Amino acid sequence: MTSEDHAGLPLSGYPALQEAVGQLNQSPGPRTVPGRTIPVPRSVSAAFGRTIALPYRDSEWKLDPPDAAGWRQAVADLAVTTAGMVEQIRERLGVTVTEGVVAGVPVFEVAPAAMRQQHQGRLLVNTHGGGYVFNPGRASLLEAVVIAANCGIKVVAVDYRMPPDHPFPAALDDAFAVWKAVVESHSPGSVGLCGGSAGGGLALATTLRAKQEGVPLPAALAIQTPWADLEEVGDSFRTNEWLDNILVSYRAAPQRAARLYANSHDLSDPFLSPLRGDLSGFPPTMLLSGTRDLFLSLTVLVHRKLRRAGVPAELHLVEGAAHFHYFINPFADESQDVFAEMAGFLDRHLTG
Amino acid sequence: MTSEDHAGLPLSGYPALQEAVGQLNQSPGPRTVPGRTIPVPRSVSAAFGRTIALPYRDSEWKLDPPDAAGWRQAVADLAVTTAGMVEQIRERLGVTVTEGVVAGVPVFEVAPAAMRQQHQGRLLVNTHGGGYVFNPGRASLLEAVVIAANCGIKVVAVDYRMPPDHPFPAALDDAFAVWKAVVESHSPGSVGLCGGSAGGGLALATTLRAKQEGVPLPAALAIQTPWADLEEVGDSFRTNEWLDNILVSYRAAPQRAARLYANSHDLSDPFLSPLRGDLSGFPPTMLLSGTRDLFLSLTVLVHRKLRRAGVPAELHLVEGAAHFHYFINPFADESQDVFAEMAGFLDRHLTG
Repeated sequence: MTSEDHAGLPLSGYPALQEAVGQLNQSPGPRTVPGRTIPVPRSVSAAFGRTIALPYRDSEWKLDPPDAAGWRQAVADLAVTTAGMVEQIRERLGVTVTEGVVAGVPVFEVAPAAMRQQHQGRLLVNTHGGGYVFNPGRASLLEAVVIAANCGIKVVAVDYRMPPDHPFPAALDDAFAVWKAVVESHSPGSVGLCGGSAGGGLALATTLRAKQEGVPLPAALAIQTPWADLEEVGDSFRTNEWLDNILVSYRAAPQRAARLYANSHDLSDPFLSPLRGDLSGFPPTMLLSGTRDLFLSLTVLVHRKLRRAGVPAELHLVEGAAHFHYFINPFADESQDVFAEMAGFLDRHLTG
Repeated sequence: MTSEDHAGLPLSGYPALQEAVGQLNQSPGPRTVPGRTIPVPRSVSAAFGRTIALPYRDSEWKLDPPDAAGWRQAVADLAVTTAGMVEQIRERLGVTVTEGVVAGVPVFEVAPAAMRQQHQGRLLVNTHGGGYVFNPGRASLLEAVVIAANCGIKVVAVDYRMPPDHPFPAALDDAFAVWKAVVESHSPGSVGLCGGSAGGGLALATTLRAKQEGVPLPAALAIQTPWADLEEVGDSFRTNEWLDNILVSYRAAPQRAARLYANSHDLSDPFLSPLRGDLSGFPPTMLLSGTRDLFLSLTVLVHRKLRRAGVPAELHLVEGAAHFHYFINPFADESQDVFAEMAGFLDRHLTG
């Protein structure tokens, strides 16, 4: 492929390309799209553009460990890098992190430098992302640190068990145990739940579980680009394949992580794929994704299903953003914009 | 290009493709994406999938008339086809259409078979899509007919003047004249404004103009995939190029239509590119687009700018939808879902 937009197609410029692609799309059916080199958009800030421009990270998207020992090693290696990045962001934001245990589950209490007055005594529980496999320990804290600082609220981050040693339903059991303990010691309306990617799926599954077991639901759900279905349901798995520089391709590491987590359990189980669940009665929900995100469709599908169920759900997208770009670069204007949105959402819906 | 995902890249299956694309994305910069054949997603209904599967329409996306006479002919030819499609949908929905004139501008009054009780006396003004060039006369009525029927409200569709004979600002002058006359004869709060594509840009520009001239603003704005900037600002102009089977490529007919409409006027003028305007004080706004829409980014950018300005704006996306799919196939489940959303939006915000 050259630096032009023509891989496998005429190299003589746009008119020939137009003709060739037009020929390939003259019948009903799949869409044939030429190879392309897509510029960093002019519609984002320079800082956010640098995140969009990042190369693929081969240590992550292509990961294919041969066995459980290989997974343990890969997870441990990546955790060192990620924990280092989290620590830099934590320090810059002045957030404090305290280790704790809730209902027998290890957690981190993440407190902002400046607590918003109205959030005194309130709490946000966080289930972190990382494909249900990555980000144990302090590597789990990226979302909690960024959200605590930007929303001025204390976050309890759940360091839930993960495969290969603890596949499904260990993560859900841990998240639910923490949630249950938190709502027993806080007034209704004062506690929310947040999570992104696998943590977004887990937050939705935890809410389904709370509903099933008659435990109070969160007063608000802040969900980022949720892995709400493990069966590769969603058009953006293909349309944004290779465009999303974080996840890159579902057919690589994500699919393997899904299998490892599910551990032969039926992937259509709503506790694994909460998009299949009954979402009626869910609390106000804020959904966040980006136009280049491999999980854009999942985010959209969850939003529509919530709305059809009568849930006041809001969808917010970041221009040009691939998976988790706003967490990876939380200081860019685009990220600050959507975290201000999240702060407003929590202000409106946490009332207890 | 074969039916596999490999144009110009190894044909030996996913592992080789993964390796090759990975090699091409090892440095910061533009994103290199291989040629692909992208299936109709499994995440949509069969009926909506048939719209996603439609071939490109060569009579529209590639249009490149040599002169004004060529444009007039192309517009007239397409109007016959479109008016025929509109008439079929109108008949099926039982909507009635009456010709009229408001403030010297030709309009159509579009009345639903079943008016919602609370919308008696209310009105929605519509500025139709079509690149500011297409869909004169009854060809303009697709959106008005679909919205009137699905929202149970009377729509006044503006048959505004268009190039080549009447470039900018004729369309805006006409839309604004109708708007001004309508708000003089209706109570505040009882009239909304809606528009899609070029009509979405025009509805936003009309609201900016009303603000500038001290005329009452709409009580609600229902905007579908707005052409809110004529300078090709937005990542989806490239990421969804060739994927959107309606607009296909901005570098073809859309860009030519933009030039024809602007008629050498500065494209950054907010009345041409309302994304550049001051959107503060805008009324509650519902924005609608689809994940395959060439104008997805424009929709997202308008949403974010409205939110930053403190406007209660809502974003709704249709999974897999390219430009205007929900209007082209208004009977599919996905379309019915978002038109029900629009009906709820109007119920909430039209109060006078």
